[in-house]
Amino acid sequence: MASPVESRRPELRKDSVTNRWVIFSPARAKRPSDFKSKSPAPSSTDSPQTCPFCIGQEHHCAPEIFRFPPQNPDWKVRVIQNLYPALSRDKDLDSSTSLSSGSLLWGCLLDGYGFHDVIIESPVHSVHLSDLTPEDVAQVLFAYKKRILQLASDDSIKYVQVFKNHGASAGASMTHSHSQMVGLPVIPPSVTTRLDSMKQYFNETGKCSICHVPTKDLLVDESVHFISVVPYAASFPFELWIVPRDHVSHFHELDQEKCRLLILEGY
Amino acid sequence: MASPVESRRPELRKDSVTNRWVIFSPARAKRPSDFKSKSPAPSSTDSPQTCPFCIGQEHHCAPEIFRFPPQNPDWKVRVIQNLYPALSRDKDLDSSTSLSSGSLLWGCLLDGYGFHDVIIESPVHSVHLSDLTPEDVAQVLFAYKKRILQLASDDSIKYVQVFKNHGASAGASMTHSHSQMVGLPVIPPSVTTRLDSMKQYFNETGKCSICHVPTKDLLVDESVHFISVVPYAASFPFELWIVPRDHVSHFHELDQEKCRLLILEGY
Repeated sequence: MASPVESRRPELRKDSVTNRWVIFSPARAKRPSDFKSKSPAPSSTDSPQTCPFCIGQEHHCAPEIFRFPPQNPDWKVRVIQNLYPALSRDKDLDSSTSLSSGSLLWGCLLDGYGFHDVIIESPVHSVHLSDLTPEDVAQVLFAYKKRILQLASDDSIKYVQVFKNHGASAGASMTHSHSQMVGLPVIPPSVTTRLDSMKQYFNETGKCSICHVPTKDLLVDESVHFISVVPYAASFPFELWIVPRDHVSHFHELDQEKCRLLILEGY
Repeated sequence: MASPVESRRPELRKDSVTNRWVIFSPARAKRPSDFKSKSPAPSSTDSPQTCPFCIGQEHHCAPEIFRFPPQNPDWKVRVIQNLYPALSRDKDLDSSTSLSSGSLLWGCLLDGYGFHDVIIESPVHSVHLSDLTPEDVAQVLFAYKKRILQLASDDSIKYVQVFKNHGASAGASMTHSHSQMVGLPVIPPSVTTRLDSMKQYFNETGKCSICHVPTKDLLVDESVHFISVVPYAASFPFELWIVPRDHVSHFHELDQEKCRLLILEGY
């Protein structure tokens, strides 16, 4: 039986001071870690034999969403539910226990409906994304695209974020190579700011600020369909943006062929 | 002679995509650290005897701004310039080498004029802020107030931020207890967002969203002049805001007596 904390639904809160959305997920604090730096003694999931992301250990994972190749026990990429999700994929239909969504005097409260998935990038524990062949990396990108399209078809989902934490200091709790995807019921303010900023730039110059590379100094590489640039005001050392030459608004609008070329052209 | 990197002036850049200001400080990457976790071999500043923040080692520091008590070799608190500042306190009057401040096609560029100071909170290497007596902590707060007032008198300074990084994982490079203060030539967008959000709340409710504690659940403690609350949408575990009961807009508007009571009342 789930403990009271584990069974508490996640909430999204925004207060009237910061105007930022924060996800409160009581269950997520319970997730295990197989990083030695986080647990002094080796944990039960420390060895490849007991890692739930390894091939043959699928029964230890939360339900699978899809795999590449489909229905194949010898899979390359698996997209699964996160066993310790930040958001709840069950719509709360029981009105007696549901949170009163909407505005409160001191902020906003939303029921934490949304999706939090894991993309297992390789069946083998010790293989990192950078070890994969270009074709295998392309499979990971195709998995992103397919899952984004699924999430985008849900009217309640306003924004999808794909991210990859590499190493314990980046926030990863599992060493087996994976990335994550969240489907959120709100648009993060940082995204709204970016869109507003780009809209303003377009109104002033008639150009897209992503397509337009300011100076050759910032251009790192280019190919037929993509360029890689250092942003003018980079926030991190070695920050790099890979930008399609065609003006497209969403990653999932890239066609299958471009997605493959993204890899084969050296990115 | 300073190397080309060390002598390069800092810049503030904002790009047209993110709309965020980023400080580029080539010199700052050169600063040493006395945290063992950052340098495998003990560095030359690793022991209290060679820590420049210790009493008796003042000649190893950048110039002092003031100390408490004034002119006293037996000081309690020292405010000094940061030896590796993120911003340059020298106004760049040489137009031939100055950056072209203002808007560029792909963003904004400002000369990195500003202040970056260090507040040494104790003369003794091993004493942390939490070890100090209430009266000694009050001296640290008085030092903040005095230095903020000095910086606020410079018309080019638009925002002052006081911060304290505790431990290497928080970004501190020196173990001796200290805090930092930056005087910036721009207002950070997160601050503008907070002000706009509070203004909107005031227009809608006629109340100040900081003064107004939403629910007793979030009130941790209260005294004659201050309350401590958990913000409704806290971003960090144990996040706590200490709020004066009187409606004041700035920390440096607290009078000397309130500043003392902030400590004596148990905060």
